[in-house]
Amino acid sequence: MKLSTQPYKGTRDFYPEDMRIRQWMFGKWRKVVECFGYEEYDGPILEPLELFAAKTSEEIVNDQSFNFEDRGGRKVIMRPEMTPTVSRMVAAKRQELGYPLRLYSIPNCFRYERQQRGRLREFWQLNVDLFGVEGIAADMENILIVDALMKEFCATNDMYEIRINSRLLLNKRIKDPVVGLKTNVADVIRALDSYDKQDRDTIIKNLSEFVENPEKLLTLLENDGPSDEVKKVQVALEKLGIKVKPTETLARGFDYYTDIVFEVFDKDPENNRSMFGGGRYDGLVGQFGVEPVPTVGFGVGDVTFKNFLETHNLLPKLENSTDLVVVLIGDVYQESQELIAELRDQGINASVDMTDRKLDKKIKSAAKQGVKYALFVGEKELDTSVYVLRDLEKGEEQKLGVKEIAKTIKG
Amino acid sequence: MKLSTQPYKGTRDFYPEDMRIRQWMFGKWRKVVECFGYEEYDGPILEPLELFAAKTSEEIVNDQSFNFEDRGGRKVIMRPEMTPTVSRMVAAKRQELGYPLRLYSIPNCFRYERQQRGRLREFWQLNVDLFGVEGIAADMENILIVDALMKEFCATNDMYEIRINSRLLLNKRIKDPVVGLKTNVADVIRALDSYDKQDRDTIIKNLSEFVENPEKLLTLLENDGPSDEVKKVQVALEKLGIKVKPTETLARGFDYYTDIVFEVFDKDPENNRSMFGGGRYDGLVGQFGVEPVPTVGFGVGDVTFKNFLETHNLLPKLENSTDLVVVLIGDVYQESQELIAELRDQGINASVDMTDRKLDKKIKSAAKQGVKYALFVGEKELDTSVYVLRDLEKGEEQKLGVKEIAKTIKG
Repeated sequence: MKLSTQPYKGTRDFYPEDMRIRQWMFGKWRKVVECFGYEEYDGPILEPLELFAAKTSEEIVNDQSFNFEDRGGRKVIMRPEMTPTVSRMVAAKRQELGYPLRLYSIPNCFRYERQQRGRLREFWQLNVDLFGVEGIAADMENILIVDALMKEFCATNDMYEIRINSRLLLNKRIKDPVVGLKTNVADVIRALDSYDKQDRDTIIKNLSEFVENPEKLLTLLENDGPSDEVKKVQVALEKLGIKVKPTETLARGFDYYTDIVFEVFDKDPENNRSMFGGGRYDGLVGQFGVEPVPTVGFGVGDVTFKNFLETHNLLPKLENSTDLVVVLIGDVYQESQELIAELRDQGINASVDMTDRKLDKKIKSAAKQGVKYALFVGEKELDTSVYVLRDLEKGEEQKLGVKEIAKTIKG
Repeated sequence: MKLSTQPYKGTRDFYPEDMRIRQWMFGKWRKVVECFGYEEYDGPILEPLELFAAKTSEEIVNDQSFNFEDRGGRKVIMRPEMTPTVSRMVAAKRQELGYPLRLYSIPNCFRYERQQRGRLREFWQLNVDLFGVEGIAADMENILIVDALMKEFCATNDMYEIRINSRLLLNKRIKDPVVGLKTNVADVIRALDSYDKQDRDTIIKNLSEFVENPEKLLTLLENDGPSDEVKKVQVALEKLGIKVKPTETLARGFDYYTDIVFEVFDKDPENNRSMFGGGRYDGLVGQFGVEPVPTVGFGVGDVTFKNFLETHNLLPKLENSTDLVVVLIGDVYQESQELIAELRDQGINASVDMTDRKLDKKIKSAAKQGVKYALFVGEKELDTSVYVLRDLEKGEEQKLGVKEIAKTIKG
């Protein structure tokens, strides 16, 4: 039987050139959040289903999750997001942990999605959470980090926009008697979540399932201005050079947000869409039977973020981590080991081509992999301790001793 | 409903202190294999079940894997190991990739295991594979890397032992007419895999299911010496200062090995066991309908490896990545931002305690998290630009300007 070489639908194979970009992106994420004092954690990919059934959006758990029964009859889920896990972990050590507690992670998450741009079944997500701080300084910190993240990738203010809203105010307006709420607030918030993606008629039609007067609700949201808290955050951030845009229709899909929420939008006209966001969710830790902990946090998906970097030409060309391939001439594998060990001791990442193919095939292979240098080593070279180093990009060759090789490559 | 704070059975929560160890271990793994010219790749956690049904040990797929049907009726498996995935990926780009191809990854893998020391349902595994090299130079490289890995963690030769065998020779001996094979070679190899873990009577009893004369088989294996190839590898490695022990009973569980195999044993009398291993598997890539690629590789599990480091006292005390907590005195969050940004610009990872708790509570929290320094910032300090820096371990305080703070912390 011939097996398929395709990965499972909606997942990705990361070949070295893809992995380089991923690690470069994750490395910058790590650098920025650690600079703000966040420490890395991780949790299991499998969680009990009930952990997510409790608070993640119902749509995600019921229609878009990978869940199944294990061999012991336990219902488990492959995490569709990280927030319930980190809340569980904080609750488990509620007393032992020091606050304010700053945690970050870059987990992979799983959703059973239909394929569309920016949506995959397996994706990675930077999660940044601050536990133990009430008040707007926490919300401000979230947005300060978001802005620092964007700047770390050389994004400029014209490329993205940070929108901000108050869930408290949104809830209040949804419950306004003139709106005529028919079901519950969460339904309306989910319907509003696509405010930017759909035309007005569709939004009104969707909203009319849950409220008597959808037009009244939109009028309230669009005309009656932001909450005082949102205004405070806006003014405070402006003093620090960061612009946020109060946006009273901004909902965020998840049920667990309790106060200020924000989203970062791509301003590219071709790609104008919400990229990521977060907000305050004060209720989750308390669900585990411990004293509640005020919390703010946000998540950044790798697919959307990389799309943003591509659209705005912010992806660099990254180099192979291998500096040099040692091309053996003849059967000198054993004899060349001392030389190779010395190169590695000097910090050179060196691979060896010990195949018995022709020299030009070996050089072609190295160039294919994007290795920058080849070093030719045969009996004569080992006798004289002088080797030919070839720059595979420029095609230039130099005769060098072992110490000069390291200097040439590193310098 | 009160939710449980426990992780799913057999999985781990990594709090920052656990994550520090994991990242330190993975960092060293990466450093060593990149030094040998290996490049990082990754694949999806979910794979079509048939990919694993084809070649991984039957026991693992049938009895020890997490597999289920997705919402579209496709049978999927959470990878119990990485080798089929990397073989699939190489086959998919068989022509485009340059050889020798050196790939590594540190994926998490999933097995439905009963809980016992060193076995978990979710574990990470360093996978190191070399594609495109026939002959013992490839096997030697595997073992050179393994030895360099152990040395990178300051393990000494008395702590571990590398055992080596030939699957070809093992297969030949199993098929020797005096042994009387009743079923197939793979069954016998699986039974032999526990040679070191069980007493002689149990091994003979297990073997007797598959061969007529289990005693004869053991006599052959124990007395008739290693293969010529194994001897060659042994001699060649000895010249490079690495000792390997030919061990003719060494089996390795997986079906896909085709020639030389090896395992690394912990020599601690309390913990004497196989830690990890690998070998040659020339047949996997060809299963995808492309020209076969000779391959050697090995895998190192994180749980076993960390156990080894613990047993031999090779785990260091690792520090928090946060250098400093800025403790605010009074409502100066906004006013202190310039100072904090300047500290961060100077490479300090700085968190902020903006809560309105008492000073001693704030200091206790920071110490709990293992942050080394606290900086006290109130109105007075901001006016004079002189701040009190406290070493939280020693309890010593200094009055410093912003530039001196960075120097003190970094120096």
